[in-house]
This record gives sequence, C-alpha cells and structure tokens, in this order.
Amino acid sequence: MLITMQPDSSAGDHESVRMSLRMRGLECHSISSSGTAAIAVTAGKVTPELAAELGLLNGVAHVRSTARPYLLAQRAARPEGTIVNVSGVRIGGDEPVIMAGPCVVESLEATIAAAQAVRRAGATMLRGGAFKPRTSPYSFQGLGEEGLRILAVARDLTGLPVVTEVMEPEQVDVVAAYADMLQIGARNMANFPLLRRAAASGKPILLKRGFSATIEEWLMSAEYILAGGNDRVVLCERGIRAFDNSTRFTLDLNAVPLVRDLSHLPVIVDPSHGTGRRDLVERMSMAGIAAGAHGLILEVHPDPDSALCDSAQTITPATLASIVSRTHLLTAALNPLAEPMIPLAAD
Amino acid sequence: MLITMQPDSSAGDHESVRMSLRMRGLECHSISSSGTAAIAVTAGKVTPELAAELGLLNGVAHVRSTARPYLLAQRAARPEGTIVNVSGVRIGGDEPVIMAGPCVVESLEATIAAAQAVRRAGATMLRGGAFKPRTSPYSFQGLGEEGLRILAVARDLTGLPVVTEVMEPEQVDVVAAYADMLQIGARNMANFPLLRRAAASGKPILLKRGFSATIEEWLMSAEYILAGGNDRVVLCERGIRAFDNSTRFTLDLNAVPLVRDLSHLPVIVDPSHGTGRRDLVERMSMAGIAAGAHGLILEVHPDPDSALCDSAQTITPATLASIVSRTHLLTAALNPLAEPMIPLAAD
Amino acid sequence: MLITMQPDSSAGDHESVRMSLRMRGLECHSISSSGTAAIAVTAGKVTPELAAELGLLNGVAHVRSTARPYLLAQRAARPEGTIVNVSGVRIGGDEPVIMAGPCVVESLEATIAAAQAVRRAGATMLRGGAFKPRTSPYSFQGLGEEGLRILAVARDLTGLPVVTEVMEPEQVDVVAAYADMLQIGARNMANFPLLRRAAASGKPILLKRGFSATIEEWLMSAEYILAGGNDRVVLCERGIRAFDNSTRFTLDLNAVPLVRDLSHLPVIVDPSHGTGRRDLVERMSMAGIAAGAHGLILEVHPDPDSALCDSAQTITPATLASIVSRTHLLTAALNPLAEPMIPLAAD
Amino acid sequence: MLITMQPDSSAGDHESVRMSLRMRGLECHSISSSGTAAIAVTAGKVTPELAAELGLLNGVAHVRSTARPYLLAQRAARPEGTIVNVSGVRIGGDEPVIMAGPCVVESLEATIAAAQAVRRAGATMLRGGAFKPRTSPYSFQGLGEEGLRILAVARDLTGLPVVTEVMEPEQVDVVAAYADMLQIGARNMANFPLLRRAAASGKPILLKRGFSATIEEWLMSAEYILAGGNDRVVLCERGIRAFDNSTRFTLDLNAVPLVRDLSHLPVIVDPSHGTGRRDLVERMSMAGIAAGAHGLILEVHPDPDSALCDSAQTITPATLASIVSRTHLLTAALNPLAEPMIPLAAD
Repeated sequence: MLITMQPDSSAGDHESVRMSLRMRGLECHSISSSGTAAIAVTAGKVTPELAAELGLLNGVAHVRSTARPYLLAQRAARPEGTIVNVSGVRIGGDEPVIMAGPCVVESLEATIAAAQAVRRAGATMLRGGAFKPRTSPYSFQGLGEEGLRILAVARDLTGLPVVTEVMEPEQVDVVAAYADMLQIGARNMANFPLLRRAAASGKPILLKRGFSATIEEWLMSAEYILAGGNDRVVLCERGIRAFDNSTRFTLDLNAVPLVRDLSHLPVIVDPSHGTGRRDLVERMSMAGIAAGAHGLILEVHPDPDSALCDSAQTITPATLASIVSRTHLLTAALNPLAEPMIPLAAD
Repeated sequence: MLITMQPDSSAGDHESVRMSLRMRGLECHSISSSGTAAIAVTAGKVTPELAAELGLLNGVAHVRSTARPYLLAQRAARPEGTIVNVSGVRIGGDEPVIMAGPCVVESLEATIAAAQAVRRAGATMLRGGAFKPRTSPYSFQGLGEEGLRILAVARDLTGLPVVTEVMEPEQVDVVAAYADMLQIGARNMANFPLLRRAAASGKPILLKRGFSATIEEWLMSAEYILAGGNDRVVLCERGIRAFDNSTRFTLDLNAVPLVRDLSHLPVIVDPSHGTGRRDLVERMSMAGIAAGAHGLILEVHPDPDSALCDSAQTITPATLASIVSRTHLLTAALNPLAEPMIPLAAD
Repeated sequence: MLITMQPDSSAGDHESVRMSLRMRGLECHSISSSGTAAIAVTAGKVTPELAAELGLLNGVAHVRSTARPYLLAQRAARPEGTIVNVSGVRIGGDEPVIMAGPCVVESLEATIAAAQAVRRAGATMLRGGAFKPRTSPYSFQGLGEEGLRILAVARDLTGLPVVTEVMEPEQVDVVAAYADMLQIGARNMANFPLLRRAAASGKPILLKRGFSATIEEWLMSAEYILAGGNDRVVLCERGIRAFDNSTRFTLDLNAVPLVRDLSHLPVIVDPSHGTGRRDLVERMSMAGIAAGAHGLILEVHPDPDSALCDSAQTITPATLASIVSRTHLLTAALNPLAEPMIPLAAD
Repeated sequence: MLITMQPDSSAGDHESVRMSLRMRGLECHSISSSGTAAIAVTAGKVTPELAAELGLLNGVAHVRSTARPYLLAQRAARPEGTIVNVSGVRIGGDEPVIMAGPCVVESLEATIAAAQAVRRAGATMLRGGAFKPRTSPYSFQGLGEEGLRILAVARDLTGLPVVTEVMEPEQVDVVAAYADMLQIGARNMANFPLLRRAAASGKPILLKRGFSATIEEWLMSAEYILAGGNDRVVLCERGIRAFDNSTRFTLDLNAVPLVRDLSHLPVIVDPSHGTGRRDLVERMSMAGIAAGAHGLILEVHPDPDSALCDSAQTITPATLASIVSRTHLLTAALNPLAEPMIPLAAD
C-alpha cells in the first residue's frame, strides 16, 4: 500500500497520516523532499475501509495498493524522479554526470595527477579505491584510511567530489568522514547489514548492481537504504555475468530504461567493469547515454598499462575527454526529445 | 594462414596464388571484391619457407598466420569493411539502415498497409515472416509461399527490399525466388546444412546470433557462408538468454563494437526480440546505434495489440518514425568522430 | 484440454471421441499404445457443456483442462510412463540403458573394434557420428552415408542397436535406413522442420536438450514429434551453457527428476558433453542414475587421446565397464524404493 | 610456489623453512595438521636456485611451482584430504554427514521439536537461522541472539552440533559463542572482511558457493580463510543462477567432483536451495551423494506448509528419514569403489 501526498501538503499532514497508521498497529516508512512525499505501509493489513478513510485525510493525493515489493523505490512513490546532489553535482537531471579516476589509490602524487587529468578531461566527480575487494587474499588490498586521506586532498585541490567504496559496516564512519559519496560494490549489493549502516550515514550512495542480481533484487537493495531514511541513492549498472568470456562481464543496458521506468532513482553505467576491455569503453559509454543513463563511471589512468589493478579496462585521459565531449553532443541531439522515450509504467 | 592481396592486384594474381597452394596439396578459400581480396589456407601446413615464397608472388600484400578460427570473416581479411548491397540499400556504410515490418505476414491487405506505413515512417527495408519457427506445433506457422508472394507484392508497391526467414535447406530456393535477403533465425544459427544452402543461393544473408552463441561461434557461422563463396553477410544481434526474466531476452550491445573490431562484416541490432518489450524498443534502438550498429530491425504493426504474434514487443508506425528521425540526429552528432571509436585489433 | 481413455477402451471408442471433436470443428492429436490413450484438443474452444458431454462417451476416463502447452508430452497423458523399444532394448523401465561409442565414425576397423569393446564393457547400444555438426566449416564433417554403412556393419556384428545423429530433413530417410534410433542434436532441438520429418520416419528418436533451452521448450520440441504421430521419444539432458568455463557445459541433473515429473517420456543423460572432461564422467554418470535417469550416453574410444573429435571428454572401455557395473549396483540399492521419489505432479 | 613437508617432519622443520623464506623477504602462509603440512609463498619471487636450496632443508618433501591462485586450498597442499571435526561429527571421510533443520528459528518449542525430529530421522547436525539475510527490509529478519540461544538449547537437548549463518563481521563473536560451525551464506561468499573475521574465530566454517561464483572464485574465498590460519573449511554447493526459472536455482553437481579434484577440502550439497522445490530434494540428494559429496544440508520442518520461510523447498521429517537411509544404502553400494572415481589432477 502506497500513500502519495499532494505537492502542497505540509509536514503536519504527513505526520497525521503516519499517526493514523500507527494507531491501527500498521508499520510505515516514508520518503519525502521538497515537492513530493510518499508513505508506504510495510506491515499490517489495510482494509478497503481504512484505505478510503486515509484518502480523506488532509494532504493525501492517492492511496493505492501495489504489486511491487519495492515500495519506496518504485516510480509511483516519486513520479517526477529523484535528483541526488553530491556536494553540488546533481545526478538524475538532464545533464549526464561523468565520474572518473583510477581503480585504486596508489599514492598521493599519482592520485593528484590523475584527479587533475580527470578534471581537465571534463569529468565532474572523482572515483578511486581505498578499500578494495580483491579475489585473492594475497593481492594488494588498498591503502585503507591513508587512501581516503589522499582522495580528500585530491578533492580539495580539484574541487571534484569523491566517490569511493565501503566494504563493511564498521568502515562506514571512516569512509563517510572523507568521501562525498559511498559506493556499495557489486559483491556487496546484498550485504544487508552494510546497506543499513550506509543508509544511516545520510551520505549519497552509489549502489552497484550485483553481477547476477535481477532488476527486482537490485531495487530491493535500494529499498533497504530508502527504508533506512536515506533517499540519496544512485543506481549503477556494471555488467552481468553471462556465458561468453570474450568480455569480462556483459554490460546490460536493457537495465537502464527498465529501472528508469520502474523506479524514480537515477541510474548510471560503468562500461569499464561492464566490458573489461578498454577498446569497448567509449562505444559502450555512448550506448549507455543513449539508453538513458544519467551518467557514467569510468576507470582512467594517465598510463593505463602501469595501473596497479584493472589495467585491461582502464582508458587514458584523452579517451575520457573524447567521451565527455561526445556525451554532450549526444545529449544535445537526443535530449529535447528524451521524455517520451521513457513512458511511465501503468503498473 | 591468411594471404591478403594488394588493392591493385589482378584476378590472374589471385589465381596464381591459389594454384601455388593447390599444387602443394593445401586447401584454400577466398573472398574478393573491388578493392580487396584475401585467401585463407584452410587445410594443410604452411611452412615458413612457403610463406616467404608466397610473399614474393605478384599482387601479394601480406602473408600472416592467425590465431582466429574464422579466417575469412576476420577483420584482417578486409580491413576497410564490407558493404552489403540489398537491391540498392547499402548496409555497412555510415548511414544506418532501418528494416521494419510485422512479425508475420497476415494477409495481403494488412501487409501492404504495414509496408506503406513502414515506408512513410522512413524505414528502407521491409521485414515479415512467411515461414515462422514456432515453439508450439499447434501455433500458426505462417502462410508459407503465399506469404512470400504477398511480401513481393508489398515490395513492388513500396520499393522496399524484403528480408524474410528461411527455416530449412529445401526452402532456400523458393524464398530466394521472392525475397531480396534471406534471414537465418537465431535458432538456426548453427544449422550448418541451412547455412551452406543459403550461401549457395548467392543472396544477401542476415545472420542472427543464436541466443546463447558466443561471439566466436557466431563468426564461425558467418565463416560457413563466406567459405561457401558468398560474402554478402550481415550479422544481427538479437538478445541473449540471461538469468533475469524481466525482459524476454537481454540485448547484448557489447557484441556490436566487439564484432566490428573482430570482423569486417556489418552488424545490426534487433531491439524487438532483444527486449521483448515495446516500451524499451526506442531507447535500445538509440543505444544500438550509439554502440556502432549499422542498422536496426524492428517489429512494427499498425495496431500492435492485434498482431498475430510478438504483440508485446511490436511498436507502432509512429514510434518507428520517431526512431528513424532520432537515428539520423544521433548519427549526425556522432558520425564525424566515429572512426577512432573502433580501433582495429592488433590481433 | 486432454481426454484420457480408460485402459480397456477400444479403438472404436477412441475414434468416436475424435469424430465428436472433428464434427464440432475442433482439431485433435492423440497418443496411444497398449494400455493407455489420450486425445488432446489442440485448436478450438471446448465449452463446459461439451466437456461434460465428452465425459459420457464410451471409454472416456477423464476430461480435464490443462495449463501446460505440451499436451501429449505431459505426464497426465500417460501416467504410467512410456517405454521406448529400440530393436529390443527397452528404455524407460527399471533397468538403465547404457549407450556408448566413439564421437565420430573414423573407419570400419576402428568402429568394429570400438563396438566390440563397448559390448564387452556391458553397454547395450552403440552410438557414433556419421553426419557431424561442426563449428568450423574446415573441420572433418563425418563420413556421411559411408559412416552409416559402417555403423550398420558394427551393429550386425555385435547385436548392439545403433543411434546416430541426423542433421537435416533431407537426411532423415538415409539415416533411418541404417540406424535403429535417430538422434536430434542439441543445436537442432528447435529445428522444427527436422523434428517433423524425423517424426514421420516412425523411428525411435533421441531428443537432446538444447544447451540453453528451458524445460518447457524442450518438452515442446518433444510435442512436435508426438503430434507428428510418433511417441517413441527419449529425452536426453546433455549440459546447459552457464557462466563458468571450468567445464565445457554444465550437466543439469535437476532436469531429470523435473521431466520425469512433468512428462511420461524416458530421459537419459550425457555426461560426456555435459562436462567435457573425462575425469568427471564416471562421477556424473552415477549422479545421473541416482537422479533418476533411465540411461546414459557416453563417448568411448579405445585410445581416447587419439580420437578424431571430443578427445578431452572421451573415456576408455575400462572406465565404461566400471560405470556399467556401478550403475547396476546403484540401481539395485535404490530401485526397490524408487517410486515414491518421483511423486506425480498435482498439475 | 608450494612447499610440501614430509609426513614425519617436525614443527621445528616447518619453522626453519618459514624463517628461510622470511629472511629473503618472501611472505608465506601455511596449513598443517597431524600428518601433513604445506607452506605457500604468497608474495615475492622464488628463484630456481632458492627452490633447489629449500628442497634440501630438513623435512621438505616437494618444492613445486603452481599455476593455481589458491595455494593452500589446492589438493596438492594436502593430498590425503581434509577432515573437519565439528564437535565430534567428522566431515570429509567416507560417511556422508546430514545436516538438517528449519530455515529459520521460530520459537523455542518449535526448534526443540524440529531438532528432535531431525535426530530421530537420523541426521547428525542441526541447521537453523537466527540472523537471516532477507531480500526485503520488511521481512522477518530472524530472532538474532535469542535465536542463537534457542539453537544452543536444542543442541544441548539432542546432542546435535549446530551450524548457523553469520552475516557481518561484528556478529562473528556472538555467533561463535553459541554455534559449533559458522555458515557463510551464498550472498556473502565474496564478503572478504567477513571471511577474515570468521577465520579468526577458529571455528569450523561452512562456505556456501555464491550463486554465480566460478569454482575458482569459490576456492579463492576458501583461501581467505585458510590464509587466516583456519583450515576447518567445508565447501557447500547450493545452486547457481541459470536461465530457466522452473527451478529457483540450478544445483550444479559438476562442482562436486571438480572441487574434490582441485581441493583437499570437504564438499557438501544443499538440494533445498539448489532446487527450491521440495519434490526434487530427495532425488537431488541421492544425486549429490553419488557425485561424491561428503554430506547434505537440508531444510526440514514438521509442517513445511506453515514454515515461516522457504516453505516451498522444505521437506518433512519423514522425507528426511528416507534420504538418510537411502544415503547409507547408496554409500554402501558405491563406497568400496569410490576412490578411483576421483583421480588426482596432474596439475
């Protein structure tokens, strides 16, 4: 059951609805922002009589039952879409956002050089790993907090907000202290304790799709964050595991228009991990934007062949610059017409 | 082993090379056209001495060994790319080609109406099924030769060349008698007797990727046709089978830049089958073009909800018109820059 | 709609039911044998009144509507199960059947030697390829009719019935002239013209599952054969395509109890193709039998390392002998208890 | 590089080897137990000269380079196999171990009743969830520590050692305080911080395979635990994600002989999650044992239809009793012959 509030409803109206629900023993969660609010009943039975009664309360626009298990993440909870503001960079609007940087923070000098190259190429956010999930216990696991400090310095010098991965609940506080946005990696998409703790930080969260997660499972993970009171979630498609090993993963661009239809959350794509091959990154970046993505996240290194990790999928700053300028051209060509391409689902 | 001829080499030069090979008991196949020719040694051992000797023959540009099992289909056999001419429509050049039409030929009137709508919307080829592979033996299996006659009438009235599926070797002659291009469906990609017979027809062939074929298997199926002396092959990505059933198939756009890199053959995409959902077709069409596809094939019906098959993935002529015009905008925005996006593989 | 006849109903009773249906413009197909018969209405609407009326006809046991698209292949059409007799070898009963032989027929001498080794090891049918579907047009494609003649000689010398693959409709007659059972390969599971022609031969048919076919698609392909009037169909699970390339394919044993539950047709497994690794064949053979398979089909060669194809997955006659004897031990241990392990679906 | 010690080597011999390595700046990890020890060089370059020198040290059996990234988990590190003792239950020997119990701990009474039913049916370990990873934030998430206390009571009453899931690093201590064995769930197979913390507890660990993890990734996760100084690891195959949704997951029994070949660690299978259908559980249990599994883990409930979670895949105690007795029959039939079925990899 989803209760949508009128645009001009007040905080008091919201509270009245919530109190009505609680008095009847129902549990509810809500998302709200300037403009829209929705309240989802997450446990307990809403009778038709109660639904009718709720519809008469001040400020209530609609009371509807819904077949989708992701109540707060569904498009109907905020039909106009969500824009996530990351230290001034707006994700979810008409202008795609490009995040770029090295796979892993290697040193202060290298990171500053990379960040400056990224900024010169026209990207607007910096990515880089301080805590790295590595398949082998014997591989370099990242610089940890030292890496976070380096990223913060790079941000201060370039003005680029930083997104970096957090791997376990106990790391959330320290990562949140340095980074502008927390990344939940693909392997942790269903790490529910981590999702809860990250939600509680109040930070914007980049939620990567697990490489064999269904669209519904992905949106349920977003729901964990929204139900935790944090609606600053950006989805990221980063490739699924399929049967052909000519690419490392298979970037699933079908997911882009699909989640734009199903959810109000912004969605970006990661062609670096999605293909694992640097020669495919530019084409798949264009394809991602044309599919409707709100941005890209890319692995870039001044000298890709010497990168400490993910070398095969890392592009040069020159390629990044080309992607940035083509993204603008492509957006300008398609944008005036973009809206009707994503019809709202009838549900 | 692949022997590439010089652009200005003569037919006699080619024949000399082939004779040299045959005299030594080696088997070879070749592709040629105005501009380029390549000869592949497909059985027998080429010693370094023989390779050196062949390199000295008149008209020979390169003699190289190759790790790829698809000899004639590989990019190096025709680095400048192949353009397939289908009754005047050129596939493989800068301008994407849009093929559209109903899933199945239902009647003469409906097909003429559909073809006219398709032409008005700006598409340049007509698709439609006369012989239909159906999962159930009890489903409508198409009108057969009567359907082919109807397609031919629709072509004559609209000027749109016709592509239609052929399902078994014995049907090749009759389909070739009516159609401008033969389609090999996804379920028949590895139907080798059919590939051989279709190759022998000399007709242009649209070779769909099997829904769980690797890129290499797909190119090996193209190799069957090329080795049969027919180089008029257009590849078509139409969706792979993955784990999430929120779409019917998963359109794999990674395949587009990948096969453009690996092969000289043109490649188009089929977002109708690739997604199975009409609300995703337009976005995925744009993504396909941005990924570098040489064209699209789309299921269109004046009244999609009443279509006899594939209704859920069929778009209206109005959506087709929108796709055609956006394809032009997108191509104009990206094309001047397109070349460097597909770097030639080092091999 | 499925009409099941009483065990003691007569041919005349069946004909009366079919005539009743045809007179009302309904289409029907049937399977019958000593003991059971079922008639499926495959086109047209059966009203509740008609259903009630049909239920009163002589010899009719049940009239039921069914949600399954495979009408004749479903378990309810022959609850006691089908036994397919291949020149005296019964497939589908309590005793598992072991088919074995080389991937491809190489020569008369080698084939006779292999067949004798197979018989000595205790297998009861001979497999071997005369027409081979090969990924590369340049690979050895089998000896063709000469290979069929060799297989027939090997059968005559050893008494082992022969199963061999048929790849295209035009080959059905010649293969049927020599072989005891026709194999439809995985790549041809959805080659509907081939299924129809093979059905018409009246021969027993081994229908391999396509490597990315769903269970339902597989049973629909069986339905093509049953609807063609041939109920001598044995299903064969031979591995699906999954994401891990540490095995060539992934033998899907879940399919075995599942199709035994859904269908009355016998099912065997092919651990050679299903794993692609000879060191896994014996264990997976045992697992297949324990899962409920009615038999195995195995690639065997006196000297596996010198086999012309599929060498990596080919076992020795000694391993085959071990598999045969363990199959008997395992069947003896589990069989008295086997029935309750496969409960009939409620539908 | 892997250094295997002689069976009669002393702790001092081991220490000498480790010191030799450290003095040269190389990093190493080791596993040891009565009978065997192996030392893996995990960082730094071993020259042929050093390898030869190490081979001469007291107690060293072999010094070999290895292509496998999982050094301590590979079969060569302990060729005779590992037996994990869980409070007296030995996993990895000739006798399969059956773990069974409810999906989730519902109440004290229900858990005691379930545990007693499980013991009566002949199983030797109790499973049950106190902390539950749930796709929805609104679903019941388990009783937490209260659930652990209940499991401990059930163990004390029945004598069955308890295995239960731990979901995050911070839970390891509390779960280890109550449980006999820690389960790492499929969604957490690549949760590396959790693996490290669980390893440090010293407790036996049941490591489920991620549902789209390759065999190599799975063994690398085991390597994290072994490198953390804990060799009490039991692997568990629980179904992979494939394309057919007629089962919830696809139990991949190929993994069983494969990991027995590649690794010395015991491996069990989970047919409940692996199929998601209770009517397939018994057959797939038999198949798992026949494939070589060292045990089974099964969801059982006195009244499956009323179970709070996973009802569709939960069997009755009567079915469990049938599985236990058939497991004995099957093991008795196959065991005397079992060894040669799993040949040691040549590596």
